[in-house]
Amino acid sequence: MTPVRVVCHQLEPHLGDTDYNRRLSETAIRSAAALGAHVVVLPELMQSGYAFNDLAEARAVSEPLDGPTLCLWKALAIELGLIVVAGFCERLSAGRVANSAALIEPDGRLTVYRKAHLWDREKLIFTAGDAPPPVVDTAVGRIGMMICYDLELPEWVRLAALAQADLLCTPVNWPDGPRPVGERPAEIVRVQANAAVNRMFIAACDRHGEERGVNWVGGSVIVDADGYPLAGASAHPTEQQLVADLPLAQARNKSISEHNHVHRDRRPGLY
Amino acid sequence: MTPVRVVCHQLEPHLGDTDYNRRLSETAIRSAAALGAHVVVLPELMQSGYAFNDLAEARAVSEPLDGPTLCLWKALAIELGLIVVAGFCERLSAGRVANSAALIEPDGRLTVYRKAHLWDREKLIFTAGDAPPPVVDTAVGRIGMMICYDLELPEWVRLAALAQADLLCTPVNWPDGPRPVGERPAEIVRVQANAAVNRMFIAACDRHGEERGVNWVGGSVIVDADGYPLAGASAHPTEQQLVADLPLAQARNKSISEHNHVHRDRRPGLY
Repeated sequence: MTPVRVVCHQLEPHLGDTDYNRRLSETAIRSAAALGAHVVVLPELMQSGYAFNDLAEARAVSEPLDGPTLCLWKALAIELGLIVVAGFCERLSAGRVANSAALIEPDGRLTVYRKAHLWDREKLIFTAGDAPPPVVDTAVGRIGMMICYDLELPEWVRLAALAQADLLCTPVNWPDGPRPVGERPAEIVRVQANAAVNRMFIAACDRHGEERGVNWVGGSVIVDADGYPLAGASAHPTEQQLVADLPLAQARNKSISEHNHVHRDRRPGLY
Repeated sequence: MTPVRVVCHQLEPHLGDTDYNRRLSETAIRSAAALGAHVVVLPELMQSGYAFNDLAEARAVSEPLDGPTLCLWKALAIELGLIVVAGFCERLSAGRVANSAALIEPDGRLTVYRKAHLWDREKLIFTAGDAPPPVVDTAVGRIGMMICYDLELPEWVRLAALAQADLLCTPVNWPDGPRPVGERPAEIVRVQANAAVNRMFIAACDRHGEERGVNWVGGSVIVDADGYPLAGASAHPTEQQLVADLPLAQARNKSISEHNHVHRDRRPGLY
């Protein structure tokens, strides 16, 4: 397995302006391809923006799986030969919507994940997913997917790791909040720990740009299988493009000492 | 609930010299009491040292629950009116030994925990515990207990948190290893994440001093319920005494937004 080049592009979707967001995503995906990316990760709800007032507003900009944004991303994945992971507001049946992420491979194959753990007012808007985080056996390695607050449930991250993800791609919108001076944001610390206890790479792509009084950490980060950052990892609330080459084969070695293996050391009968 | 003063005293036990280690622990416990500590945490295997060659060597210095070290710690807890948490090599039946920790309250009550997840060659020496991490309802708050590598299993930490621990006291001996320049040790990062995802305080007491070629991180840390360090948190492989006043009541509020609660947001049916 040769190293896999991953790009996280932290940018600013505009709330409700799906035309603008499509153009923005296309520019980012083409830019990642120009850098030789095998995988490009864009933020949660890239297609729609985040701070909806209510379900009606979200529904109005939601898209089905054959909508214009996913069609664009699929066309770009095929044309450019890379994997696209990005968030979108998915139109479900019966007037419902989901906070979803798409993983699209260069052969056009689409995998969709629906956020299972909803943050704050998302609970008033989105229907939570009930399916485990998918792990897709791509040409460059096994890629898992989940979204933002899902990362705060170590049980959920464990599921993706036990399903043998080498790399977890996570579109996020991390709302900013207070933290002690000089401390790395807790959101990033949790990503590091999730990576280390599973020996799995994680690429988290955050956003920037205020929406209705909400600001974001701007904490995009790419973390190695030991839990140390390879790119990003600071609060940096403006545009940034992170690039890292990931030796994903390392994630297939779960041994951390002569006698320890991060997964076989689990004692599920006790949990 | 008034703030609880916790002291972690990172010191250097001598391998196999239980007399020396008893004197060292007594000095540390008296020093913590002089600082007004309600709780003092000492390292893993404080009573015995760590780097045993084999079971016979560990057995030779192991102690039963009425051995001289636990009797001393009990006498000190009663005399000084504080809670002692420290590690010891416990003599079990049939020639077996456990890597254990004691929590002794000022009324003399003893709670013992046996490390359930063993690190490296510990597997050749110690019998792993099968009981969940205890959570003791003390006069100053609910205190959970586990040891070192247990912290790398988020499922195990979750058990203590779901059993309503306000504070998790963790004797550790973190073997040192390479890390990127400027990065906080991953052991500490995992403690931070464990605290944050459970809104629970954690006090981890490491050691220093080489034993048979093994060195330690010296990473003792006391972390708040948001996952940020209140004391310690660097690789500092020499003696240090960390002091922090913990508003443990904060750990009883698991809400992190108007609609989120770190434990009720779990979806156990899916894990």
